[in-house]
Amino acid sequence: MQVTMCPERATMEHVTSRWGVLVLQALSDGEAWRFSELRRELQLASEKMLTQTLRTLERDGFVHREVHPVIPPHVDYTLTPLGKGAAGHLVALASWIGANQAEVTQAQESYDGS
Amino acid sequence: MQVTMCPERATMEHVTSRWGVLVLQALSDGEAWRFSELRRELQLASEKMLTQTLRTLERDGFVHREVHPVIPPHVDYTLTPLGKGAAGHLVALASWIGANQAEVTQAQESYDGS
Repeated sequence: MQVTMCPERATMEHVTSRWGVLVLQALSDGEAWRFSELRRELQLASEKMLTQTLRTLERDGFVHREVHPVIPPHVDYTLTPLGKGAAGHLVALASWIGANQAEVTQAQESYDGS
Repeated sequence: MQVTMCPERATMEHVTSRWGVLVLQALSDGEAWRFSELRRELQLASEKMLTQTLRTLERDGFVHREVHPVIPPHVDYTLTPLGKGAAGHLVALASWIGANQAEVTQAQESYDGS
């Protein structure tokens, strides 16, 4: 049975999706990123997954897609002010994990050895 | 090609996984939850997914699984102090989304109409 998902939960899933997390973290450096640069940064993301992720985040108002009218055309992606708010929470979580990873690894070793 | 994942990124994936997010948020109320209560709360999670999620979070040191030696045996789950740290960031993100969902919905409507 498919239960209707409230909008907040859907937004949470977009922001915390595997590639959503990584795109928002990358863009949180404040720079404009090209698709090919994001593709390189994310490594395992397929072109299709990255396209879908960027489209979802653009639709939610987190990412701004800018088409520069030059020849050849040049597209890049930045965070909107709303996106900066969401990304800030992911960056804080990533930083917390960085500071606590040793304890996580220790817990894993203890779990695996028990 | 499979690229080796650094431990921090793996931890980020556990914490932000679809069911990881919801389990950590539920447990962040500070109560001890039984499996059946979590199952009811999460609705769409299969028994297998919930079992895997709890085991991953227990292995990472975020969740404590307590077996009460009564008849019939009774198992419940709580956050460890480490888990409270991780869950705090998800609760903050969820609260931010709650406060900004109207703007997200507006962005979606504008995107769909353009």
